[in-house]
Amino acid sequence: MIHPGTSPIFLLTDFGTADTYVGIVKAVISSIAPFSHIVDLTHEIPPQDVRAGAFALMTAAPYLPDDAIVVAVVDPGVGTERRPIAVQVGTRTFVGPDNGLLSWAVGDGANAKIVVLDRAQFWLPNVSATFHGRDIFGPVAAHLATSVRLSWVGTPTDAMVTIPFPGPQVTRDEADQIQSVTGEIIHADRYGNLISNLRTDDLPADPWVSIGKRVIAGLSPNYQSTGTGPLIALIGSAGLLEIARPNGSAAKHLDVGVGAAVTITGGPTPPSPVS
Amino acid sequence: MIHPGTSPIFLLTDFGTADTYVGIVKAVISSIAPFSHIVDLTHEIPPQDVRAGAFALMTAAPYLPDDAIVVAVVDPGVGTERRPIAVQVGTRTFVGPDNGLLSWAVGDGANAKIVVLDRAQFWLPNVSATFHGRDIFGPVAAHLATSVRLSWVGTPTDAMVTIPFPGPQVTRDEADQIQSVTGEIIHADRYGNLISNLRTDDLPADPWVSIGKRVIAGLSPNYQSTGTGPLIALIGSAGLLEIARPNGSAAKHLDVGVGAAVTITGGPTPPSPVS
Amino acid sequence: MIHPGTSPIFLLTDFGTADTYVGIVKAVISSIAPFSHIVDLTHEIPPQDVRAGAFALMTAAPYLPDDAIVVAVVDPGVGTERRPIAVQVGTRTFVGPDNGLLSWAVGDGANAKIVVLDRAQFWLPNVSATFHGRDIFGPVAAHLATSVRLSWVGTPTDAMVTIPFPGPQVTRDEADQIQSVTGEIIHADRYGNLISNLRTDDLPADPWVSIGKRVIAGLSPNYQSTGTGPLIALIGSAGLLEIARPNGSAAKHLDVGVGAAVTITGGPTPPSPVS
Repeated sequence: MIHPGTSPIFLLTDFGTADTYVGIVKAVISSIAPFSHIVDLTHEIPPQDVRAGAFALMTAAPYLPDDAIVVAVVDPGVGTERRPIAVQVGTRTFVGPDNGLLSWAVGDGANAKIVVLDRAQFWLPNVSATFHGRDIFGPVAAHLATSVRLSWVGTPTDAMVTIPFPGPQVTRDEADQIQSVTGEIIHADRYGNLISNLRTDDLPADPWVSIGKRVIAGLSPNYQSTGTGPLIALIGSAGLLEIARPNGSAAKHLDVGVGAAVTITGGPTPPSPVS
Repeated sequence: MIHPGTSPIFLLTDFGTADTYVGIVKAVISSIAPFSHIVDLTHEIPPQDVRAGAFALMTAAPYLPDDAIVVAVVDPGVGTERRPIAVQVGTRTFVGPDNGLLSWAVGDGANAKIVVLDRAQFWLPNVSATFHGRDIFGPVAAHLATSVRLSWVGTPTDAMVTIPFPGPQVTRDEADQIQSVTGEIIHADRYGNLISNLRTDDLPADPWVSIGKRVIAGLSPNYQSTGTGPLIALIGSAGLLEIARPNGSAAKHLDVGVGAAVTITGGPTPPSPVS
Repeated sequence: MIHPGTSPIFLLTDFGTADTYVGIVKAVISSIAPFSHIVDLTHEIPPQDVRAGAFALMTAAPYLPDDAIVVAVVDPGVGTERRPIAVQVGTRTFVGPDNGLLSWAVGDGANAKIVVLDRAQFWLPNVSATFHGRDIFGPVAAHLATSVRLSWVGTPTDAMVTIPFPGPQVTRDEADQIQSVTGEIIHADRYGNLISNLRTDDLPADPWVSIGKRVIAGLSPNYQSTGTGPLIALIGSAGLLEIARPNGSAAKHLDVGVGAAVTITGGPTPPSPVS
C-alpha cells in the first residue's frame, strides 16, 4: 500500500450512468474512505450480462495499481443465495458477487485468498435485497481501502464460482495435423472492432482469418493498414485477435457481433470459399 | 468537515457527457478546490426535466458524506430572474438554481439555511447568461469546499421554490374504508424497473398491484423471485414500490414509462379486471 | 504547480465509456501518479473525428487549472508514422498524437514548447500498435504530473500539425461594404443547440441570422427568451454564435447538424427569402 488509507477503488458495473446507482455507491465509499480515489472502469456492461462483465474486468486487471481495490457488480442474483465475496490476488482485491464475474480476472484462484462477506459491521446498517453494491460491496471495499484486512471482512472459503474462458476449437486432419482453429467474437467495441477469444499462441504464422463469408489474409500491424479487402485482422491491445475496418466499423460492415465464429487456417492457400 | 479544504463535491446535471460542459465545471472546481474529490451522481437527467432531477437527487441525498457539497444543475431558466441559491441541511450543502430541483432532497426546508448567491467575488470574473454551472454554481461550491462559509457566499432568505412530491391518491368506500391507493411511475431505470411514488407505509399488508391491465399478487423479496406472471412488484432500494421483470425489462414488457398509474388494493381477492 | 506530485490530469478521447479503454488509461495513470486527480473532459468524441475533438478541447482549455496535464486521444493513425507529442503552453501541458487534435486549444504554438515523445523509459514496457493512450500518452502525462519535466520525456521540435480553424466567409458588395458573413455549425450539443464558428466580433450590431430557410432577428440574451419565431440566436458560453430553441432542440426542429451554413446580414431589413 502506497499510503495508509488511500488505496484507489475501481468500479465496474452494469448500472449505467443515467440512474444515480453509481453515484450512490461512490457517496457511500467516500463516506467511509474519503481519501481514496474512486475510478470508473465502466458501468455500461449490458444489463445482467455476467460474462461480458468478466471479459471487461479481465482486460483491465493487468493494468491496475498494486494496491487497487475493485468493486465489480453484475448481479442478477442479488438478494438470493449467491454469496458476496472478496478475493485477494497478490496485493489487489476484488469485491463482488460470487457468480463468475470475477473469475476471468482472478484466474483459477490457485494463488487467491477468498472470503465470504459475512461480517455485517462492515456493511451499511440496513441491507436491501436489491442493491448490494451500495449496502455490502461498496462499504466492504471502502473499509479494505482504509487498511481493514481481508480476514476481518469475511470467512475464508476454498472455492469461488468460475466461468470457463472459451478456448479455441481445433480441427485436425487424418494425419492429426491442425487443419483449422475456431474461436468466437467475445466483444465488439465502440469502434466496431470485433475482438475474439483467440490469442497469438493459437494462430499459425501466416493465418487466413475467416468470419462469415469473408477471408482476411494475414495480420496487419495497426488499424490504418490496408490489405486486399475492406477488413483487416490484427492482434489488439488485449493480446487477442481482432477483426477491424480501417476508418470504419467491422461490426457494421459484417453485421455480426458477440458469438460470431472466427476460423483460422494456415498454409499457402486460403480456405475454400464458404458454399 | 473531515479535513480542511477537502470536502467532496458531488455533481448532478442534465448536461450529458458528450459535450465538455461537465468537464469544464470540473476544471473550474479543481482550479479553486484542488484537493476536493469531484464525484458524479449523474449527468443524464433528461434535458430540462427539473422534476426528474429532483427525484434523482432525492435518491442519492441520504447516502452523501457528512461534509458533502452538491452542485445540482437542471436549469432551463438560466439567465432569467430565477435565483441561484445554496441550501445547507445539517452539515451538507446544496448549490443550484431555485427552481424546485433541490426541494425533494432538502425536504420542506424547515431545518435548512438558504442563501441567495449574490456575492460575485465567489464567481468566475465573467458570468455568461447560459452556463451558471461553470460561472456561479461550480465556483461557489468549490469555495464552500475550501472552508468558505455559507454566510459569505450569499444573503439569507426564508423560502425556496419547492415542487410538491406527488402523494398517493386514496379512494374510500361508502363506509370510509380504504378501497384503493393510486400512485404513479416517477422513474424507469436502466434495467426497465418501474419505480413509483408509493412507500411501504402506503401499502396494505398483502397488496394487489395493478398497472395497465396487469395485476400482480403481493410483493417479491428480490428481482429473481417469480410469481404467477411475468412481472413482480417489490420495495426497491429507494424504499419505493417498483414493478420489475425478472431477467428482463418491465418498461419494455408493459410499454409504459414515467407517469403511468399504479393502483393498489388489499383484501383476499384481486381487483376486478379492467374493462 | 500547487503541490509536488499532485497535478490534475484531464482526459479527452473518442474511446466512449462502454469499453474499459478509459478505465485502463486511468489505472495506468494512477499506478504512476497516485495522488493526481483524474478528470474526464469527455470520452464521447465521435470515433476518429479529430476535428470534433479539437473543438471540444478548445472549449475546455481556458478553464483548466494552471498546473493541468491534459491527455487527448483521437488517434486514427495510432501505430503509424504520426508522432506522439507533448505541448506546454504557459504552465499547462497537452499530451497526444500530432494530428491536429491539440491545435485549436494550443493556438498557433508560437508560445508553446513542443517535444516529440521518444523516451521509452516513460512508457509502459510493452507498447502496442493500437493503444498509445494506455502505453505512451497516459504514462507520460502521469510522469509529468509527478514533477518529471517536459524536456525529459521527449526531444524538442519546432512545429506541430495544425488544423486551420474555419473562419467566416465575408461577401462584399460593389462598394466593398460587407454584405453578409457566412459561417458553419461546428457542434450540436445535447440540448440540440447549434454552435457555429462565428464570434461576436464577426457580427454586425443587429444581425439577421439565416440558417436553412429560417431567418432569426437579432440576438437573445438567454435560452428562455422568445422572439417572433420558434428559434433564437445568441452568443453561447464558448463565445460563439448559437442557434437554439427555447425548451426544445434546434437541431431537431431544423433537422440540421454539423456543417450546416449560417449566414449573417446586417441592416434594417431581413435578407430576401431563400428562393
